[in-house]
Amino acid sequence: MTGSRIILALDVPDRKRALEVASAVSPYISYIKINWPLVLAAGTDIIRDLGEFRPVICDLKLADIPNTLKLIADEISKRSPFGVIAHAFVGSDCLKELVNHSPEMKVFAVVAMSHPGSRDVMDSQVDRLIDIARSSGVYGVVAPANKPDLLSRVRKMMPDTVIISPGSGAQGGDPVEGIRAGADFIIVGRSLYGAADPAKEAQRLMITTSSR
Amino acid sequence: MTGSRIILALDVPDRKRALEVASAVSPYISYIKINWPLVLAAGTDIIRDLGEFRPVICDLKLADIPNTLKLIADEISKRSPFGVIAHAFVGSDCLKELVNHSPEMKVFAVVAMSHPGSRDVMDSQVDRLIDIARSSGVYGVVAPANKPDLLSRVRKMMPDTVIISPGSGAQGGDPVEGIRAGADFIIVGRSLYGAADPAKEAQRLMITTSSR
Repeated sequence: MTGSRIILALDVPDRKRALEVASAVSPYISYIKINWPLVLAAGTDIIRDLGEFRPVICDLKLADIPNTLKLIADEISKRSPFGVIAHAFVGSDCLKELVNHSPEMKVFAVVAMSHPGSRDVMDSQVDRLIDIARSSGVYGVVAPANKPDLLSRVRKMMPDTVIISPGSGAQGGDPVEGIRAGADFIIVGRSLYGAADPAKEAQRLMITTSSR
Repeated sequence: MTGSRIILALDVPDRKRALEVASAVSPYISYIKINWPLVLAAGTDIIRDLGEFRPVICDLKLADIPNTLKLIADEISKRSPFGVIAHAFVGSDCLKELVNHSPEMKVFAVVAMSHPGSRDVMDSQVDRLIDIARSSGVYGVVAPANKPDLLSRVRKMMPDTVIISPGSGAQGGDPVEGIRAGADFIIVGRSLYGAADPAKEAQRLMITTSSR
Protein backbone atom coordinates (compact mmCIF):
# COMPACT_ATOMS: atom_id res chain seq x y z
CA MET A 1 0.00 0.00 0.00
CA THR A 2 0.97 3.61 -0.48
CA GLY A 3 0.12 4.83 3.01
CA SER A 4 -2.17 7.36 1.36
CA ARG A 5 -5.47 8.12 3.05
CA ILE A 6 -7.09 8.96 -0.27
CA ILE A 7 -9.61 6.74 -2.07
CA LEU A 8 -10.24 7.65 -5.69
CA ALA A 9 -13.96 7.72 -6.51
CA LEU A 10 -13.79 6.84 -10.18
CA ASP A 11 -17.22 8.08 -11.17
CA VAL A 12 -16.53 8.24 -14.89
CA PRO A 13 -18.82 6.07 -17.01
CA ASP A 14 -16.11 5.33 -19.56
CA ARG A 15 -13.65 2.45 -19.49
CA LYS A 16 -10.74 4.16 -21.27
CA ARG A 17 -10.93 7.32 -19.17
CA ALA A 18 -11.29 5.27 -15.97
CA LEU A 19 -8.11 3.31 -16.69
CA GLU A 20 -6.22 6.50 -17.61
CA VAL A 21 -7.15 8.24 -14.36
CA ALA A 22 -6.46 5.12 -12.28
CA SER A 23 -3.03 4.74 -13.83
CA ALA A 24 -2.14 8.41 -13.31
CA VAL A 25 -3.18 8.70 -9.66
CA SER A 26 -2.42 5.19 -8.37
CA PRO A 27 0.91 6.16 -6.70
CA TYR A 28 -0.98 8.58 -4.45
CA ILE A 29 -4.10 6.63 -3.45
CA SER A 30 -4.87 3.48 -1.46
CA TYR A 31 -8.11 2.27 -3.04
CA ILE A 32 -10.25 2.84 -6.10
CA LYS A 33 -14.00 3.14 -5.55
CA ILE A 34 -16.28 2.56 -8.53
CA ASN A 35 -20.05 2.65 -8.86
CA TRP A 36 -22.89 1.49 -11.09
CA PRO A 37 -22.47 3.96 -13.98
CA LEU A 38 -18.97 2.65 -14.75
CA VAL A 39 -19.98 -0.99 -14.23
CA LEU A 40 -22.94 -0.51 -16.57
CA ALA A 41 -20.88 1.26 -19.22
CA ALA A 42 -17.78 -0.93 -19.06
CA GLY A 43 -19.01 -4.30 -17.74
CA THR A 44 -18.08 -6.06 -14.52
CA ASP A 45 -14.60 -6.96 -15.80
CA ILE A 46 -13.58 -3.36 -15.12
CA ILE A 47 -13.38 -4.43 -11.46
CA ARG A 48 -10.57 -6.84 -12.23
CA ASP A 49 -8.84 -4.44 -14.62
CA LEU A 50 -8.77 -1.59 -12.12
CA GLY A 51 -7.60 -4.05 -9.46
CA GLU A 52 -4.26 -4.10 -11.29
CA PHE A 53 -3.69 -0.56 -10.02
CA ARG A 54 -5.23 -0.58 -6.54
CA PRO A 55 -7.74 -2.71 -4.58
CA VAL A 56 -11.26 -1.90 -5.79
CA ILE A 57 -14.28 -1.08 -3.63
CA CYS A 58 -17.57 -1.55 -5.49
CA ASP A 59 -19.82 1.26 -4.31
CA LEU A 60 -23.07 -0.37 -5.37
CA LYS A 61 -25.13 1.05 -2.48
CA LEU A 62 -26.85 -2.33 -2.28
CA ALA A 63 -30.24 -2.17 -0.60
CA ASP A 64 -32.20 -5.29 -1.44
CA ILE A 65 -33.47 -8.43 0.28
CA PRO A 66 -30.92 -11.07 1.36
CA ASN A 67 -31.65 -13.50 -1.49
CA THR A 68 -31.04 -10.82 -4.14
CA LEU A 69 -27.90 -9.58 -2.38
CA LYS A 70 -26.51 -13.10 -2.47
CA LEU A 71 -27.02 -13.29 -6.24
CA ILE A 72 -25.42 -9.87 -6.76
CA ALA A 73 -22.46 -10.88 -4.58
CA ASP A 74 -22.00 -14.00 -6.73
CA GLU A 75 -21.66 -11.90 -9.87
CA ILE A 76 -19.39 -9.27 -8.35
CA SER A 77 -17.07 -11.42 -6.24
CA LYS A 78 -15.92 -13.37 -9.32
CA ARG A 79 -13.93 -10.24 -10.27
CA SER A 80 -12.14 -10.16 -6.90
CA PRO A 81 -12.93 -6.68 -5.61
CA PHE A 82 -11.51 -5.70 -2.24
CA GLY A 83 -14.92 -4.67 -0.98
CA VAL A 84 -18.54 -3.79 -1.61
CA ILE A 85 -20.73 -1.02 -0.19
CA ALA A 86 -24.28 -1.76 1.01
CA HIS A 87 -26.87 0.24 2.95
CA ALA A 88 -27.42 -0.41 6.65
CA PHE A 89 -31.01 0.86 6.50
CA VAL A 90 -32.29 -2.36 4.92
CA GLY A 91 -31.39 -4.20 8.11
CA SER A 92 -28.93 -6.58 9.67
CA ASP A 93 -30.11 -9.72 7.87
CA CYS A 94 -29.08 -8.08 4.58
CA LEU A 95 -25.63 -7.04 5.75
CA LYS A 96 -25.04 -10.40 7.44
CA GLU A 97 -25.94 -12.20 4.21
CA LEU A 98 -23.20 -10.28 2.39
CA VAL A 99 -20.65 -10.68 5.20
CA ASN A 100 -21.22 -14.43 5.42
CA HIS A 101 -21.84 -15.30 1.78
CA SER A 102 -18.67 -13.74 0.36
CA PRO A 103 -16.16 -13.54 3.22
CA GLU A 104 -13.32 -12.65 0.84
CA MET A 105 -15.12 -9.42 -0.12
CA LYS A 106 -15.11 -6.81 2.67
CA VAL A 107 -18.47 -5.23 3.40
CA PHE A 108 -18.77 -1.49 4.07
CA ALA A 109 -22.13 -0.29 5.41
CA VAL A 110 -23.52 3.17 4.67
CA VAL A 111 -24.55 4.71 8.00
CA ALA A 112 -24.82 8.31 6.79
CA MET A 113 -24.70 10.16 3.48
CA SER A 114 -23.46 13.47 2.13
CA HIS A 115 -26.30 14.87 -0.04
CA PRO A 116 -29.10 17.24 1.14
CA GLY A 117 -31.79 14.49 0.94
CA SER A 118 -30.00 12.48 3.62
CA ARG A 119 -31.48 14.94 6.10
CA ASP A 120 -35.01 13.79 5.21
CA VAL A 121 -34.77 10.50 7.16
CA MET A 122 -31.26 9.07 7.35
CA ASP A 123 -29.56 11.59 9.63
CA SER A 124 -32.19 11.05 12.33
CA GLN A 125 -31.60 7.29 12.22
CA VAL A 126 -27.81 7.29 12.41
CA ASP A 127 -27.61 5.58 15.83
CA ARG A 128 -29.81 2.74 14.65
CA LEU A 129 -27.86 2.42 11.41
CA ILE A 130 -24.61 2.20 13.37
CA ASP A 131 -26.17 -0.52 15.57
CA ILE A 132 -27.14 -2.49 12.48
CA ALA A 133 -23.66 -2.15 10.97
CA ARG A 134 -22.02 -3.16 14.24
CA SER A 135 -24.20 -6.19 14.86
CA SER A 136 -23.68 -7.39 11.30
CA GLY A 137 -19.93 -7.66 11.60
CA VAL A 138 -19.07 -5.42 8.67
CA TYR A 139 -15.46 -4.50 7.96
CA GLY A 140 -16.10 -0.79 7.56
CA VAL A 141 -18.67 1.97 7.32
CA VAL A 142 -19.32 4.94 5.08
CA ALA A 143 -19.99 8.33 6.70
CA PRO A 144 -19.65 11.78 5.17
CA ALA A 145 -16.77 14.25 5.57
CA ASN A 146 -19.09 17.20 4.92
CA LYS A 147 -20.93 16.48 8.21
CA PRO A 148 -18.02 16.46 10.69
CA ASP A 149 -20.25 16.34 13.80
CA LEU A 150 -22.02 13.26 12.53
CA LEU A 151 -18.73 11.70 11.41
CA SER A 152 -17.25 12.25 14.90
CA ARG A 153 -20.29 10.53 16.37
CA VAL A 154 -19.78 7.49 14.13
CA ARG A 155 -16.11 7.34 15.12
CA LYS A 156 -16.98 7.52 18.82
CA MET A 157 -19.54 4.74 18.53
CA MET A 158 -17.29 2.58 16.32
CA PRO A 159 -13.74 3.17 17.57
CA ASP A 160 -12.28 0.12 15.82
CA THR A 161 -14.10 0.15 12.52
CA VAL A 162 -12.64 1.47 9.27
CA ILE A 163 -14.46 4.65 8.23
CA ILE A 164 -14.36 5.84 4.64
CA SER A 165 -15.74 9.31 3.95
CA PRO A 166 -17.24 10.87 0.83
CA GLY A 167 -18.50 14.44 0.66
CA SER A 168 -15.25 16.34 0.22
CA GLY A 169 -14.50 18.72 -2.61
CA ALA A 170 -17.47 19.12 -4.97
CA GLN A 171 -19.85 18.25 -2.13
CA GLY A 172 -18.50 20.89 0.23
CA GLY A 173 -16.50 18.93 2.81
CA ASP A 174 -12.83 19.43 3.61
CA PRO A 175 -10.55 16.34 3.52
CA VAL A 176 -8.43 17.46 6.46
CA GLU A 177 -11.49 18.19 8.58
CA GLY A 178 -12.80 14.72 7.64
CA ILE A 179 -9.60 13.07 8.87
CA ARG A 180 -9.73 15.09 12.10
CA ALA A 181 -13.36 14.07 12.63
CA GLY A 182 -12.41 10.40 12.49
CA ALA A 183 -12.23 9.22 8.87
CA ASP A 184 -9.57 6.65 8.06
CA PHE A 185 -9.84 7.34 4.35
CA ILE A 186 -11.21 10.28 2.39
CA ILE A 187 -13.07 9.49 -0.82
CA VAL A 188 -12.34 12.05 -3.53
CA GLY A 189 -14.05 12.01 -6.91
CA ARG A 190 -14.76 15.03 -9.05
CA SER A 191 -11.92 17.12 -7.66
CA LEU A 192 -9.46 14.38 -8.71
CA TYR A 193 -10.71 13.01 -12.02
CA GLY A 194 -11.88 16.48 -13.04
CA ALA A 195 -8.54 18.14 -12.26
CA ALA A 196 -6.35 19.48 -15.05
CA ASP A 197 -3.59 17.24 -13.65
CA PRO A 198 -5.19 14.43 -11.58
CA ALA A 199 -1.82 12.97 -10.49
CA LYS A 200 -0.60 16.30 -9.15
CA GLU A 201 -3.87 16.93 -7.33
CA ALA A 202 -3.80 13.38 -5.85
CA GLN A 203 -0.25 13.90 -4.63
CA ARG A 204 -1.21 17.22 -3.06
CA LEU A 205 -4.19 15.60 -1.31
CA MET A 206 -2.10 12.65 -0.11
CA ILE A 207 0.43 15.00 1.49
CA THR A 208 -2.22 17.28 3.00
CA THR A 209 -4.12 14.44 4.63
CA SER A 210 -1.17 12.26 5.73
CA SER A 211 0.34 14.90 7.97
CA ARG A 212 -2.73 14.94 10.23
CA MET B 1 -52.28 -4.98 -21.62
CA THR B 2 -53.59 -8.26 -20.37
CA GLY B 3 -55.65 -6.90 -17.49
CA SER B 4 -53.62 -9.16 -15.23
CA ARG B 5 -52.63 -7.86 -11.83
CA ILE B 6 -49.51 -10.00 -11.78
CA ILE B 7 -45.96 -8.71 -12.26
CA LEU B 8 -43.37 -11.38 -12.96
CA ALA B 9 -40.24 -10.92 -10.82
CA LEU B 10 -37.71 -12.47 -13.16
CA ASP B 11 -34.98 -13.06 -10.60
CA VAL B 12 -33.03 -15.56 -12.67
CA PRO B 13 -29.44 -14.58 -13.42
CA ASP B 14 -29.47 -16.26 -16.82
CA ARG B 15 -30.45 -14.68 -20.13
CA LYS B 16 -31.79 -17.81 -21.83
CA ARG B 17 -33.87 -18.92 -18.88
CA ALA B 18 -35.19 -15.37 -18.39
CA LEU B 19 -36.41 -15.18 -21.99
CA GLU B 20 -37.99 -18.65 -21.76
CA VAL B 21 -39.94 -17.80 -18.62
CA ALA B 22 -40.98 -14.38 -19.97
CA SER B 23 -42.25 -15.95 -23.17
CA ALA B 24 -44.19 -18.66 -21.35
CA VAL B 25 -45.98 -16.45 -18.82
CA SER B 26 -46.43 -13.22 -20.82
CA PRO B 27 -50.11 -13.86 -21.66
CA TYR B 28 -50.91 -13.87 -17.95
CA ILE B 29 -48.87 -10.94 -16.59
CA SER B 30 -48.81 -7.16 -17.04
CA TYR B 31 -45.18 -6.30 -16.35
CA ILE B 32 -41.80 -7.97 -16.00
CA LYS B 33 -39.63 -6.86 -13.10
CA ILE B 34 -35.90 -7.55 -13.28
CA ASN B 35 -33.07 -6.81 -10.91
CA TRP B 36 -29.29 -6.49 -10.74
CA PRO B 37 -28.33 -10.20 -10.88
CA LEU B 38 -29.94 -10.59 -14.32
CA VAL B 39 -28.58 -7.25 -15.58
CA LEU B 40 -25.08 -8.21 -14.40
CA ALA B 41 -25.27 -11.68 -15.93
CA ALA B 42 -26.96 -10.76 -19.21
CA GLY B 43 -26.07 -7.09 -19.78
CA THR B 44 -28.37 -4.09 -19.97
CA ASP B 45 -29.72 -5.10 -23.40
CA ILE B 46 -31.85 -7.70 -21.62
CA ILE B 47 -34.12 -4.77 -20.69
CA ARG B 48 -34.94 -4.16 -24.35
CA ASP B 49 -35.20 -7.87 -25.16
CA LEU B 50 -37.69 -8.58 -22.37
CA GLY B 51 -39.59 -5.45 -23.37
CA GLU B 52 -40.72 -7.40 -26.45
CA PHE B 53 -42.90 -9.49 -24.14
CA ARG B 54 -44.12 -6.98 -21.55
CA PRO B 55 -43.08 -3.53 -20.25
CA VAL B 56 -40.05 -3.92 -18.01
CA ILE B 57 -39.58 -2.44 -14.54
CA CYS B 58 -35.92 -2.29 -13.47
CA ASP B 59 -35.85 -3.12 -9.80
CA LEU B 60 -32.45 -1.63 -9.09
CA LYS B 61 -33.31 -0.44 -5.56
CA LEU B 62 -31.34 2.70 -6.35
CA ALA B 63 -30.12 4.48 -3.24
CA ASP B 64 -27.34 6.87 -4.19
CA ILE B 65 -26.74 10.62 -4.40
CA PRO B 66 -28.54 12.57 -7.17
CA ASN B 67 -25.49 12.93 -9.44
CA THR B 68 -24.88 9.17 -9.48
CA LEU B 69 -28.57 8.41 -10.00
CA LYS B 70 -28.56 10.65 -13.06
CA LEU B 71 -25.64 8.70 -14.56
CA ILE B 72 -27.33 5.36 -13.83
CA ALA B 73 -30.58 6.63 -15.38
CA ASP B 74 -28.65 7.60 -18.52
CA GLU B 75 -27.35 4.05 -18.93
CA ILE B 76 -30.67 2.35 -18.18
CA SER B 77 -33.11 4.62 -20.01
CA LYS B 78 -31.36 3.95 -23.35
CA ARG B 79 -32.96 0.47 -23.25
CA SER B 80 -36.47 1.93 -22.83
CA PRO B 81 -37.70 0.28 -19.64
CA PHE B 82 -41.19 1.13 -18.45
CA GLY B 83 -39.93 2.03 -15.01
CA VAL B 84 -37.22 1.96 -12.41
CA ILE B 85 -37.36 1.30 -8.65
CA ALA B 86 -35.48 3.53 -6.19
CA HIS B 87 -35.48 3.87 -2.41
CA ALA B 88 -37.39 6.71 -0.74
CA PHE B 89 -35.02 6.35 2.22
CA VAL B 90 -32.28 8.40 0.55
CA GLY B 91 -34.52 11.45 0.33
CA SER B 92 -36.64 13.53 -2.00
CA ASP B 93 -33.77 15.17 -3.91
CA CYS B 94 -32.75 11.71 -5.12
CA LEU B 95 -36.23 10.68 -6.26
CA LYS B 96 -36.85 14.08 -7.88
CA GLU B 97 -33.60 13.78 -9.82
CA LEU B 98 -34.83 10.51 -11.34
CA VAL B 99 -38.37 11.79 -11.97
CA ASN B 100 -37.11 14.93 -13.72
CA HIS B 101 -34.05 13.59 -15.49
CA SER B 102 -35.74 10.71 -17.31
CA PRO B 103 -39.44 11.57 -17.53
CA GLU B 104 -40.10 8.72 -19.99
CA MET B 105 -39.07 6.20 -17.31
CA LYS B 106 -41.62 5.88 -14.49
CA VAL B 107 -40.18 6.00 -10.99
CA PHE B 108 -41.41 3.65 -8.28
CA ALA B 109 -40.27 4.44 -4.73
CA VAL B 110 -39.73 1.75 -2.10
CA VAL B 111 -41.64 2.83 1.03
CA ALA B 112 -41.62 -0.55 2.79
CA MET B 113 -40.01 -3.95 2.29
CA SER B 114 -40.86 -7.59 2.81
CA HIS B 115 -37.84 -9.17 4.52
CA PRO B 116 -37.27 -9.51 8.31
CA GLY B 117 -34.53 -6.85 8.37
CA SER B 118 -37.00 -4.19 7.22
CA ARG B 119 -38.27 -4.19 10.80
CA ASP B 120 -34.89 -2.91 12.05
CA VAL B 121 -35.48 0.67 10.82
CA MET B 122 -37.67 0.96 7.74
CA ASP B 123 -41.04 -0.07 9.17
CA SER B 124 -40.84 2.65 11.83
CA GLN B 125 -40.19 5.29 9.15
CA VAL B 126 -42.98 4.37 6.74
CA ASP B 127 -44.92 7.63 7.15
CA ARG B 128 -41.85 9.69 6.38
CA LEU B 129 -40.96 7.48 3.42
CA ILE B 130 -44.49 7.95 2.04
CA ASP B 131 -44.12 11.73 2.46
CA ILE B 132 -40.86 11.65 0.53
CA ALA B 133 -42.38 9.56 -2.26
CA ARG B 134 -45.43 11.83 -2.46
CA SER B 135 -43.49 15.09 -2.52
CA SER B 136 -41.17 13.72 -5.21
CA GLY B 137 -43.93 13.10 -7.72
CA VAL B 138 -43.19 9.43 -8.30
CA TYR B 139 -45.51 7.33 -10.47
CA GLY B 140 -45.78 4.46 -8.03
CA VAL B 141 -44.57 2.93 -4.81
CA VAL B 142 -43.43 -0.50 -3.63
CA ALA B 143 -44.94 -1.92 -0.42
CA PRO B 144 -45.09 -5.54 0.68
CA ALA B 145 -48.02 -7.94 0.44
CA ASN B 146 -46.76 -9.93 3.43
CA LYS B 147 -47.46 -6.96 5.72
CA PRO B 148 -51.14 -6.25 4.93
CA ASP B 149 -51.60 -3.73 7.74
CA LEU B 150 -48.70 -1.66 6.52
CA LEU B 151 -49.84 -2.02 2.90
CA SER B 152 -53.33 -0.76 3.83
CA ARG B 153 -51.72 2.22 5.51
CA VAL B 154 -49.78 3.07 2.35
CA ARG B 155 -52.97 2.77 0.27
CA LYS B 156 -54.85 5.06 2.64
CA MET B 157 -52.11 7.70 2.57
CA MET B 158 -51.66 7.43 -1.21
CA PRO B 159 -55.12 6.74 -2.65
CA ASP B 160 -54.18 7.61 -6.24
CA THR B 161 -50.70 6.13 -6.51
CA VAL B 162 -49.93 2.83 -8.20
CA ILE B 163 -48.84 0.29 -5.58
CA ILE B 164 -46.84 -2.77 -6.58
CA SER B 165 -46.35 -5.44 -3.93
CA PRO B 166 -43.66 -8.06 -3.43
CA GLY B 167 -43.61 -10.53 -0.57
CA SER B 168 -46.11 -13.13 -1.77
CA GLY B 169 -45.41 -16.80 -2.15
CA ALA B 170 -41.88 -17.70 -1.05
CA GLN B 171 -41.84 -14.71 1.34
CA GLY B 172 -45.06 -15.69 3.08
CA GLY B 173 -47.66 -13.23 1.79
CA ASP B 174 -50.90 -14.11 0.02
CA PRO B 175 -51.58 -12.44 -3.36
CA VAL B 176 -55.32 -12.13 -2.76
CA GLU B 177 -54.78 -10.59 0.66
CA GLY B 178 -52.31 -8.17 -0.95
CA ILE B 179 -54.92 -7.03 -3.48
CA ARG B 180 -57.51 -6.62 -0.73
CA ALA B 181 -55.05 -4.55 1.32
CA GLY B 182 -54.63 -2.11 -1.56
CA ALA B 183 -52.05 -3.40 -4.04
CA ASP B 184 -52.68 -2.66 -7.72
CA PHE B 185 -50.21 -5.30 -8.81
CA ILE B 186 -48.74 -8.31 -7.06
CA ILE B 187 -45.11 -9.13 -7.76
CA VAL B 188 -44.50 -12.86 -7.98
CA GLY B 189 -41.08 -14.37 -8.41
CA ARG B 190 -39.95 -17.72 -7.11
CA SER B 191 -43.42 -19.27 -7.13
CA LEU B 192 -43.71 -18.48 -10.85
CA TYR B 193 -40.28 -19.07 -12.35
CA GLY B 194 -39.71 -21.98 -9.98
CA ALA B 195 -43.00 -23.70 -10.85
CA ALA B 196 -43.05 -26.96 -12.78
CA ASP B 197 -45.31 -25.18 -15.30
CA PRO B 198 -44.80 -21.39 -14.96
CA ALA B 199 -47.49 -20.55 -17.55
CA LYS B 200 -50.13 -22.61 -15.77
CA GLU B 201 -49.22 -21.10 -12.40
CA ALA B 202 -49.30 -17.57 -13.88
CA GLN B 203 -52.74 -18.21 -15.36
CA ARG B 204 -54.00 -19.53 -12.03
CA LEU B 205 -52.63 -16.47 -10.21
CA MET B 206 -54.10 -14.10 -12.79
CA ILE B 207 -57.54 -15.60 -12.34
CA THR B 208 -57.32 -15.73 -8.55
CA THR B 209 -56.32 -12.08 -8.24
CA SER B 210 -58.54 -10.60 -10.97
CA SER B 211 -61.79 -11.72 -9.40
CA ARG B 212 -61.21 -9.56 -6.29
